[in-house]
Amino acid sequence: MVDYKFDVGIIGAGPAGLAAAFKAKSLGKTVVVIEKYLWGGTCPNYGCDPKKIMLTAVEGIKRAEKLANYGLHGQLQINWAALQANKKEYTDAVQPRKLHGLDKAGIQHFHGVASFVTPNQVNVGPISIEATDWVIAVGQKPKTLDFPGAEFTLNYEQFLNLPELKGEVAFIGAGYVGMEFATITSTAGTKTHVITHGDSALRSFDSDMVLQVVNEMQKKDVDFHFNSEVIKIEKLAGKYQITLSDDSVIVVDQVFNTAGRVGNHTELNLNAIGVENDLYEIKVDQYLRTNIPNIYAIGDVAKAQVAKLVPTGNFQGRYVAELIQNKISDPIKYPAIASVAFTSPRLAQVGILAKDANSAQTIKEKDFSKWITYYRNHEQAIIKTVLNNDGTVTGGSVYALEAEEIINYLVEAINNKRTKLSFSQILYSYPSYGSDVSDFI
Amino acid sequence: MVDYKFDVGIIGAGPAGLAAAFKAKSLGKTVVVIEKYLWGGTCPNYGCDPKKIMLTAVEGIKRAEKLANYGLHGQLQINWAALQANKKEYTDAVQPRKLHGLDKAGIQHFHGVASFVTPNQVNVGPISIEATDWVIAVGQKPKTLDFPGAEFTLNYEQFLNLPELKGEVAFIGAGYVGMEFATITSTAGTKTHVITHGDSALRSFDSDMVLQVVNEMQKKDVDFHFNSEVIKIEKLAGKYQITLSDDSVIVVDQVFNTAGRVGNHTELNLNAIGVENDLYEIKVDQYLRTNIPNIYAIGDVAKAQVAKLVPTGNFQGRYVAELIQNKISDPIKYPAIASVAFTSPRLAQVGILAKDANSAQTIKEKDFSKWITYYRNHEQAIIKTVLNNDGTVTGGSVYALEAEEIINYLVEAINNKRTKLSFSQILYSYPSYGSDVSDFI
Repeated sequence: MVDYKFDVGIIGAGPAGLAAAFKAKSLGKTVVVIEKYLWGGTCPNYGCDPKKIMLTAVEGIKRAEKLANYGLHGQLQINWAALQANKKEYTDAVQPRKLHGLDKAGIQHFHGVASFVTPNQVNVGPISIEATDWVIAVGQKPKTLDFPGAEFTLNYEQFLNLPELKGEVAFIGAGYVGMEFATITSTAGTKTHVITHGDSALRSFDSDMVLQVVNEMQKKDVDFHFNSEVIKIEKLAGKYQITLSDDSVIVVDQVFNTAGRVGNHTELNLNAIGVENDLYEIKVDQYLRTNIPNIYAIGDVAKAQVAKLVPTGNFQGRYVAELIQNKISDPIKYPAIASVAFTSPRLAQVGILAKDANSAQTIKEKDFSKWITYYRNHEQAIIKTVLNNDGTVTGGSVYALEAEEIINYLVEAINNKRTKLSFSQILYSYPSYGSDVSDFI
Repeated sequence: MVDYKFDVGIIGAGPAGLAAAFKAKSLGKTVVVIEKYLWGGTCPNYGCDPKKIMLTAVEGIKRAEKLANYGLHGQLQINWAALQANKKEYTDAVQPRKLHGLDKAGIQHFHGVASFVTPNQVNVGPISIEATDWVIAVGQKPKTLDFPGAEFTLNYEQFLNLPELKGEVAFIGAGYVGMEFATITSTAGTKTHVITHGDSALRSFDSDMVLQVVNEMQKKDVDFHFNSEVIKIEKLAGKYQITLSDDSVIVVDQVFNTAGRVGNHTELNLNAIGVENDLYEIKVDQYLRTNIPNIYAIGDVAKAQVAKLVPTGNFQGRYVAELIQNKISDPIKYPAIASVAFTSPRLAQVGILAKDANSAQTIKEKDFSKWITYYRNHEQAIIKTVLNNDGTVTGGSVYALEAEEIINYLVEAINNKRTKLSFSQILYSYPSYGSDVSDFI
């Protein structure tokens, strides 16, 4: 006898899991959600949302600096403690809101570690729960580093909760997280190092644009250590001495591990019931189904050939709920997905990169810096597109202060196979990113 | 014998006229453009573009103020002279760029006042020019006020070129221009008055949202004088004393006429050749044709039942060029058009207002202020939509820092008859205005 029975059980209450839960419930299923840590998951609690609060404040400094010789005078500084309090006010509201949403929708929820007993039964501590279908949406967590002194590194959650930003900091890893955090610390006035084994940063973005971001960060006194491995970290007189593979040494006050993530599924007892998985992900087919037919994996923990992003997780969550309800039967088919690195300026990408264009495709690039939408901020802006023979867009890269908004016009263009003519039929507001992109396409 | 002959003659080199010129040229016509004042017209020289430069600088102050208790400390001020120099650097480049564009495209151009001799012939000073078709795109200009002392008022061009922003200023008129300029002066720290005969401002926008903008401006020490007519202005000891219809008196350093505009077509000798027009506009049919079959009017000077905006003018310009070339034969049909008041926060509108919704339509409203995209700026944001029975959007109003970008998603939604389901198939970047609107619709 199990304690509870549901149609659909969801493990992990991040964006993907919650999207699946609400969709399944709206389709008439009985639904349970199990979360072992924070309701809402990484993004709203210690990921994309609080990061944007930190970034927006430091961007205030950068925006003002850009206009310092152009009519806007004065000085701004970051008060880290006040910024933390501001962020905390936002994040403190997340869990109550998420739980309220679940209660309002009539979705049952349990807090604790889920452990599979059979493909249908999961235990949460002493409680046993049976569900016809299970959806695993537990996300990923920081990858443990394996050099001596790795224990001195702080992870991204610790960075976002940092009570004090000390004199000099280092980030190990130059992906989204490292680059975004290094933008925050350097713009806040803290000497910053970025250490990466790669020869560049942000490898899924346009390399010319990445170079420009790196240059902008170097102007803010960021030291990049490319092609570098960390050999060891030693604690010396309250500071951390990092030895790199070229024998050079950096001494900093805080070191952050932003080197990558592994799956958060190790406690689920998946091996015992035979669900195929590795350190990083759970294996799924084109229906997001694991090798056990009633168990699905979605979001960052799913080994799907798609960028691990909030919109992806949402989309997968809704898909899997409809699949379970037999509302659809086709494999998942992703529309164009935009990814953004919230550096300063930011980088955004959708579809194929210019370097991957084939000979039948055309690359179009324009520096918009003199256009009013960018000139007014004295910020450079570059848009690059890959166009098919018929004039439709198949890839886009953006380097700009608000690249996340500009890329959305290209997302829409790809989805709706827009050509110049088709764009000219949409009268976006003037001046706006929309009117600029319409003009450019 | 005339001096020059062309297929298409265009009078006025603003956005509408230039759109018509480039389109006609691209369709194989020989084209001439005549401009009596600044190449590029109002918008880039003394309208929407330079205004945004001024506004962006003062918004830097407002953005910082909003975060003053939330981690971003310090003080910013406007240096009006530096801001003017910044603006001038932008506007100085406009005319050379426009002329270069015309030359590069092989479009002939003349500077001077155009005067019709016959429906086909126009003289510019001593030069006579014949064209098979003429397109009038001369725009509008400030309306002269008719109370004693009206000569003391400065117009919008003079405001944007103002060498010095003095102690206390007044704007007569609370439309776009008055409200936008009052936002600039008040945020720059200048005591500001807005005088209007209406009982509110910005009457083409959602009245609840207008009220919020008015409240925000009042917090910035703007005095609104509603239901007020100016009786007279007197110059007293270097200041201007304005007497209002309720006998109250305001004493200011500068007074600006932002009360409305009239047509800029009075010098064209239209009455002599029988083109119907009034003080404000030139009468056109659904083909943008005047009562003289080979003469068209487009842009702000055309009496078309559509908002007078840059995107409208561009759209009309392209339409009329295609019509003349016989590429199309249908009456002009406008897509949804977004209008924006660049106040702080801004207001944007597309389609019908909530107050004009019928009983079969639903009004949906949401305060997004706690969502990360707005919370990070500590700026309020409200989106209101009017939905048809089938869930498609038919009207949208936005109150937000960057309302001009948010409204664009609603423009697209109206044009493409999007429903919630259709929106969920577009994976806009997260977090962005796009992902918020997708969630809301």
